[in-house]
Amino acid sequence: MKVLVINCGSSSLKYQLIDMSNEESLAQGLVERIGITGSILTQKVEGKDKYVVETPLKDHQDAIELVLKCLVDENHGVISSMDEISAVGHRVVHGGEKYATSVVINEEVIKALDEFTKLAPLHNPPNIIGINACKALMPKTPMVAVFDTAFHQTMPEKAFMYALPYELYTEDHVRRYGFHGTSHKYVAGEMAKWMDKDISDLKIVTCHIGNGVSITAVDGGKSVDTTMGFTPLDGIIMGSRSGSIDPAIVTYLVKEKGYSIDEVNDILNKKSGVLGISGIGTDFRDIRSAVENDNDPRALLTMDIFGYQVKKQIGAYAAVMGGVDAIVFTAGIGEHAPEIRSRALTNMEFLGIEVDLEKNESHNIGDGMEISKETSKVKVVVIPTNEELMIAKETLELVK
Amino acid sequence: MKVLVINCGSSSLKYQLIDMSNEESLAQGLVERIGITGSILTQKVEGKDKYVVETPLKDHQDAIELVLKCLVDENHGVISSMDEISAVGHRVVHGGEKYATSVVINEEVIKALDEFTKLAPLHNPPNIIGINACKALMPKTPMVAVFDTAFHQTMPEKAFMYALPYELYTEDHVRRYGFHGTSHKYVAGEMAKWMDKDISDLKIVTCHIGNGVSITAVDGGKSVDTTMGFTPLDGIIMGSRSGSIDPAIVTYLVKEKGYSIDEVNDILNKKSGVLGISGIGTDFRDIRSAVENDNDPRALLTMDIFGYQVKKQIGAYAAVMGGVDAIVFTAGIGEHAPEIRSRALTNMEFLGIEVDLEKNESHNIGDGMEISKETSKVKVVVIPTNEELMIAKETLELVK
Repeated sequence: MKVLVINCGSSSLKYQLIDMSNEESLAQGLVERIGITGSILTQKVEGKDKYVVETPLKDHQDAIELVLKCLVDENHGVISSMDEISAVGHRVVHGGEKYATSVVINEEVIKALDEFTKLAPLHNPPNIIGINACKALMPKTPMVAVFDTAFHQTMPEKAFMYALPYELYTEDHVRRYGFHGTSHKYVAGEMAKWMDKDISDLKIVTCHIGNGVSITAVDGGKSVDTTMGFTPLDGIIMGSRSGSIDPAIVTYLVKEKGYSIDEVNDILNKKSGVLGISGIGTDFRDIRSAVENDNDPRALLTMDIFGYQVKKQIGAYAAVMGGVDAIVFTAGIGEHAPEIRSRALTNMEFLGIEVDLEKNESHNIGDGMEISKETSKVKVVVIPTNEELMIAKETLELVK
Repeated sequence: MKVLVINCGSSSLKYQLIDMSNEESLAQGLVERIGITGSILTQKVEGKDKYVVETPLKDHQDAIELVLKCLVDENHGVISSMDEISAVGHRVVHGGEKYATSVVINEEVIKALDEFTKLAPLHNPPNIIGINACKALMPKTPMVAVFDTAFHQTMPEKAFMYALPYELYTEDHVRRYGFHGTSHKYVAGEMAKWMDKDISDLKIVTCHIGNGVSITAVDGGKSVDTTMGFTPLDGIIMGSRSGSIDPAIVTYLVKEKGYSIDEVNDILNKKSGVLGISGIGTDFRDIRSAVENDNDPRALLTMDIFGYQVKKQIGAYAAVMGGVDAIVFTAGIGEHAPEIRSRALTNMEFLGIEVDLEKNESHNIGDGMEISKETSKVKVVVIPTNEELMIAKETLELVK
């Protein structure tokens, strides 16, 4: 069985076709500039040249039509007919409180997703457009929605409630939802396999550190707390996002600096975080090079703040679970920034963490790279995330 | 030597006269409704009846004049002449980055306090008014400013910087300052005495939990991190304050709910926290009674959230310091709410914390009440705070 995984942004679309018999990715692709001049599709297939198609795409339906065409293309494709696609798994950002698991998409689900748009105005609309476009083109293929929020629906009330007027929760659904759920669930599961233990016996802190950052306490396989909250702006420092701050700073920016609320939103989402502190950019490789080549003090400060905030979160989540057995680092920075991991993990022997600083420097991750010492009570492993595979697995399970 | 301690609010004034030869409080008083109809002074002196004076007070100078009159009053006073007051210690909320210690007040200091008004628009102006009123009435008495922020000026950059555009720090001084410094410093010092150890050898988490809440990591006697930030709104749940939240919630309240930024400010400062969650009030005794008598689910949730947030912070600060030797609970709720302490401290054996749940229930605090078991690696003690004594001590030290 082959599953197509679709991840729709407002003007882009990522896809991957996965053969579930061996969990192998057959093709990965990206469509950019949908509905804008200069639309372009790039598809990669193991052992073949990169396939680039530039053609006007007026909407997501055009884009998905092109994706299907490329997948069955005689020279560049990997399947001979659309019928080989047994199911489509859609990444959906927000499932509200309604969806604690993935779900087969029907009219009722689409209606519910529409309702959650208020909670995720930037993310859910393109997800819905992508689903509708797929349905139009492949009306008989079963489709599954896999939510970024679902894994975190096991959080207890004391973890997901903000200390705000209660009515903001009951009437407006303002609460911590958490995101990156698919990734946290995937790497927690892989960690249990790595340790050859039942996940229900493990207390794991999963650190998904990419351009977006979220850290989760996974107790017995369940998310019990996570740093992202009502939106993906909450939590700790990210590429260009501030994470959680004193909310009075928002007031200050409006009242004392004269910014509009949209401008403040823009500052906190696009001009803060690694970019804001360093003044360099959001790419951590540039931060590293500024430290290594120029001894740049703000780049160094950025690393210090980042590692420090990860460290605090690990401590907080150890407290939440009454200890910690394992820590996973994943996603772009989690997998490739040893300077963040070392800052987060050193001087944590009191928690049973002994980091091997030499192993930590390696970039040879493979399926997983253990960076704790053999004597370490807490296992620390770098595990590459694979949200697409996870989405395909959940899709397969539901349509079987 | 006798030191008068003054704490000015916008329409109120707290005072205490302390005999520094034995650190005994001779008189404590409160003036309310300054500049409003119904001005009233209440003074308490050990062994005497409460002394209440109702008389119009048009400003803080009137109020301080009355305070001095009451202190030398033949029947209700405790000194025979104003000259017995050797020095005045003023509590000042914000000392910016300029003052890392207390300071003798001169013209330059008053000018600096004026500058910090932008950072503490609600708090610094009444502090300055109080200082000027005292100077007018006691021009020859030395005065000292003791800052809420000073103790936290030892925080490293990685702890005090928000992940915001760097210019907001360099140009607008937006950073974590921390408050309640006098209290944290006092109880950390008392804890070292309690343990009969040098404070420079101790890692202490001090939990000041009153109507305002702040938790501090005190490493070797120095504040290395604290929960309150740019303003006293940051950190964890408080009486009516939200603490830190997803800043996107502020945007949501403005854009989706149509609140003005002032209304949002009001919600986060005055309608959130314990009051917001419980719907009952800010007084923790009412929350307790709602749980005990009515099994009120929102009151119970309030306790759960409160204890949970304290617990997370203890874990985070243990991580910051590489372990923890002692935890102090102080201020109204910290001293008198065993249900918060038990929630924060149970299931923390992995950190070396063993709480004695029976001792924890006692309200017999005295100078300190140890609530950890004898076998506990981490000592947990409830210590009553005494900011006034601390202010008097720092004042004495500087004017000697």
